[in-house]
Parts: sequence; structure tokens; C-alpha cells
Amino acid sequence: MAKKRLVIVGLGLIGGSLALALKGFEDFEIVGVDVSQPTLRFAAEHGVGDTVTEDAATVLPTADVVVLALHPRGIVDFLAQHRDRFPAGCLITDVCGVKTAILEAAEVLPDTVDFIGCHPMAGTEFSGIEHAFGEMFQGSHLILVPRKNSTPEHIALMERLAAYIGCRDVYRTTAEEHDAMIAYTSQLMHIIAVSVCDDPMLFTCRGFEGSSFRGCTRVAALDVGLWTELFSMNRPALVASVDRLLESLTAYRAALSSGDNAVLSAKLARSAARKRQMDLPGPDLLS
Amino acid sequence: MAKKRLVIVGLGLIGGSLALALKGFEDFEIVGVDVSQPTLRFAAEHGVGDTVTEDAATVLPTADVVVLALHPRGIVDFLAQHRDRFPAGCLITDVCGVKTAILEAAEVLPDTVDFIGCHPMAGTEFSGIEHAFGEMFQGSHLILVPRKNSTPEHIALMERLAAYIGCRDVYRTTAEEHDAMIAYTSQLMHIIAVSVCDDPMLFTCRGFEGSSFRGCTRVAALDVGLWTELFSMNRPALVASVDRLLESLTAYRAALSSGDNAVLSAKLARSAARKRQMDLPGPDLLS
Repeated sequence: MAKKRLVIVGLGLIGGSLALALKGFEDFEIVGVDVSQPTLRFAAEHGVGDTVTEDAATVLPTADVVVLALHPRGIVDFLAQHRDRFPAGCLITDVCGVKTAILEAAEVLPDTVDFIGCHPMAGTEFSGIEHAFGEMFQGSHLILVPRKNSTPEHIALMERLAAYIGCRDVYRTTAEEHDAMIAYTSQLMHIIAVSVCDDPMLFTCRGFEGSSFRGCTRVAALDVGLWTELFSMNRPALVASVDRLLESLTAYRAALSSGDNAVLSAKLARSAARKRQMDLPGPDLLS
Repeated sequence: MAKKRLVIVGLGLIGGSLALALKGFEDFEIVGVDVSQPTLRFAAEHGVGDTVTEDAATVLPTADVVVLALHPRGIVDFLAQHRDRFPAGCLITDVCGVKTAILEAAEVLPDTVDFIGCHPMAGTEFSGIEHAFGEMFQGSHLILVPRKNSTPEHIALMERLAAYIGCRDVYRTTAEEHDAMIAYTSQLMHIIAVSVCDDPMLFTCRGFEGSSFRGCTRVAALDVGLWTELFSMNRPALVASVDRLLESLTAYRAALSSGDNAVLSAKLARSAARKRQMDLPGPDLLS
């Protein structure tokens, strides 16, 4: 029996890591697609995907699963351009960090195919296939945004895929909830990191930075094109998150400058307790 | 020849880790001092220090080096209480995260002893000897704040000690510069972490947090008593750091809400380039 085909479109940091992590997954042949010749050469030389090609139009009609690992605008464009090339019964998914815009873009697809939005909560501050590694998804959350007509078989396939690449758990949600949450848990962290790096003291503080500084600012060295898209495609939720942070920081500034250590201490105790409570094992996220 | 004695006062997270890291350092016997019986029992059972005692008054007159690993107010009080118990030629140092207040407190010491302020840029969000580990200082910066009359021999001893526990480099500075830098590189990171954890979405976002969220908020589970002291003993510099962050965040908010992606992209490019430049290997920090 011929193998099934899982096609990964875009062999960058995430697509390349996914191709490495999916090696040997069930009876799937992993096919990598990219428009960059150096990327395809690197993939072929390093075994990123079982086979690689630059010809999406030819490989798509043979695909059982297609993972779109492009930047958000690239996904929107790809879906519009290739909407009629996906075979009946095909599952199409993605890996990008906004979901409302992607699910809307997927409306161009015919009813004969299934689209399930996907966001593995993993990554690094680097980009490109040369930084890909198969262990990227170990211990991460994976978020699924199915559509009303997504089949149980395809959702189950995504859950097996998540388990195979090492994800800790799978959470199903709506595009709107995903984007509101991610504005806080991911996008705001990037806005904080770049804001801290805008401080005039950045270059004079060498020798004084510890693990908290490195942890907070690591993601500031971001992929500018990608994050401009992610931020601008989720603008209202992100601005609301920034406003809530400005409010919380201003409250801490007031407690500090009051000079009243009892007030400061009570406020720190409350925040620290919230963090400890948040780290307690939560309910099973498989819904 | 009798061994020299290095006395660590306070066997908490940092003091305990230092006792473990210093095992076998040159010809020093490591003596741990603590007022807590459970801590002393834990230390004795786990080999934290070669010997342990609750009796500071008896052991101090026999010390060659004394490391004060107490909270800042504890250091101030200890110096005042034991000022006449340090033998001539003794080197006294500390490990705490503010320096102006500690160097001022050290003025009570007689001229016969040497005080060098010290701040290893290492730690975790936990506290207590049960979380201590000897590898804590691997790859960290260590900052020294000598006094005008600190001897070259004692500074050289601190540099050998730093190398022995695995520090990456040693930086000498003044108390004022230390406190201004640390307000930004360390204290502000803690204010950010607790402020992010004050967000109403904290408990609903489980399943959506990735490595950037964990990196930014890790230190929010802080030791409230310790950090109330550290913040309040460095208030003006910390408030100034918070104000600079509020300004940078507000500028990002404006770029986001302008809806002009070219403006946002240019701003992100500038911040990301600063972060990459900051991560380039800097000049040798040994001064």
C-alpha cells in the first residue's frame, strides 16, 4: 500500500522543525515544499522531510494532509492561489500565531476539504531552516481551532500528530478566544521585550544582566516581518493587553514611590501568590 | 598548617549554593552559620559547608573570610551587631542585590578589616537551603564593589573565588553605578513579571502560554520580604527605570494603534537590531 502524504509548505524555523519532528509518523511520507533553492538544498542535505520540492501545484493534488508553515499573509495568499488543488478529503492545517484572519481566509476552500487551524506554542527568536530542530515542540501546548464541519477523524489525527512531536497537551478553542489569549501570553511578551531593549541603558548594562533579564528580553531579536503581520492582524486585542499592562505597571510605580513598604509588600505578596497558583497543575486541557 | 576559614552567614538559597560551590576551594574550610535549626540540620545532612554552627559570635573571631548571605536589612544589622568580632586582616563580603546601603552599613567596621561588596548575578525564584545547588553561579557575572582601601590581595582572592564557582566574568564598579544598573537589569524585570501576573487573564490563559511567557513571568514567584527590601533600598533608580519602560511601552502602543504597518515595522527593526547588537560579545569585563 502506498504511503500517505503529509506536505509541509514552508521549511522555515517552524516548518523545518515540524518536518524533523514528524519523521516516521504513522504511514506518512513527509514532503517539504519551499520556494527557496538554498532552503531546499539544506533540507535535502539534512534530511528535513523525506522528499522536497519547489512545485506546490504538482504535489498538492496528491496530499492527504497539508501543513501551511508560512507567515500569516503567505498563508492567506497560498489558500487563495491553490484553493482548487487540494484533493477531496484532504486535511489542511497551519502553524501560525493568529487564527481569526486565517480561518476567514480558509473560507475560500471548497467544501470537499477540511481546514483545522493549529498553533503549536513553541519557537525560538531565530528564523530559517538552519535553526530548525526536531525537539522544538517537546512539552509545548498545541492549540486547535476546528471548524463546525471538521471531522472527528481529522481532529483525532491532529491529536496523534501533537503527541508524536512531543506536545504536552492539546487545547481546542475558537479563533476569537485564541487571538485574545495569545495577545496576552505571547504578543505582549514580545512588546515587553522590545520595549525593554529600547531603554537607553541597554548597551551600558553589560556585565549586570542575569537570568531574569535574559528571560524577559530573549524574544526581542524577533523576525520583524513576521511579527509586524502577527501584531497588525490582532491589533485590538494586543492594544487592550498593552493597556492592561500599563495600568498594572503604573499601580506598581505608585506603590514604590509611596515609600510605604507595607503597601508594597502586600502588593508583591498578592502577585507572587497569583504566579504560584498559576503554576499549579491545572485541569486536563484535552477537551 | 591549619586550614583557613571561610564563614558563610546565612544558608538560604544563595548562601547554601555558595557553600556547595566553594567546597574544596584552595585551603579553605567552609563554615556555615544559620539561626534556623532545620536549616542547620539540612546543611549537616547534605554536606552544605564542611561544618555548621548557630554561633556566629564564637566563629567570627577565627574567620579569614566572612560572606554575609542574609537579606539586606539582615546584613546591616549583622554588621552593626558583630562589628568588633572580626579579626584583623579579615575580608568581609556579601552577596546581596543592593550596594549603596550595604557599603554605607560597612562604615561601622574597624579599619583593621576589609569589606568588598559582591553581587553574583545568579539566583532562582525559590528560596531556602533545600533549593540550593552548587552549579548556580555557572556562567554568571559577578560584580565587585571594593572600597578605596580594599587590598589587591583581597580583590584577587574574590576573583579566584568567582572563577572557582564558575562565574563567567568579574566586573568592578561603584555602589552607585551598581544600583543604577541593577534597577534596570534585575529589579525592573521583577516589576514586569509581577505586573504581567496581575492581569485578569492570568488564570484563564492556561494552555496558551509558551516559552516567552514563562521566561518573562518566572521570577514573579518571588521572596516578598527580600524584594520589598531590595526595591525600597533602591527606590529612586527603580522608579526611574519603571518610568522609562512606561515611556517605551506607550510609544509601542502608539505605533500599534496608528494602524501604519511601516511605522510599526521600522520600530520593531530598530529594537530587534539593538537586542542583536547587545548580544554580540562585548569588551572584556575584567577591569
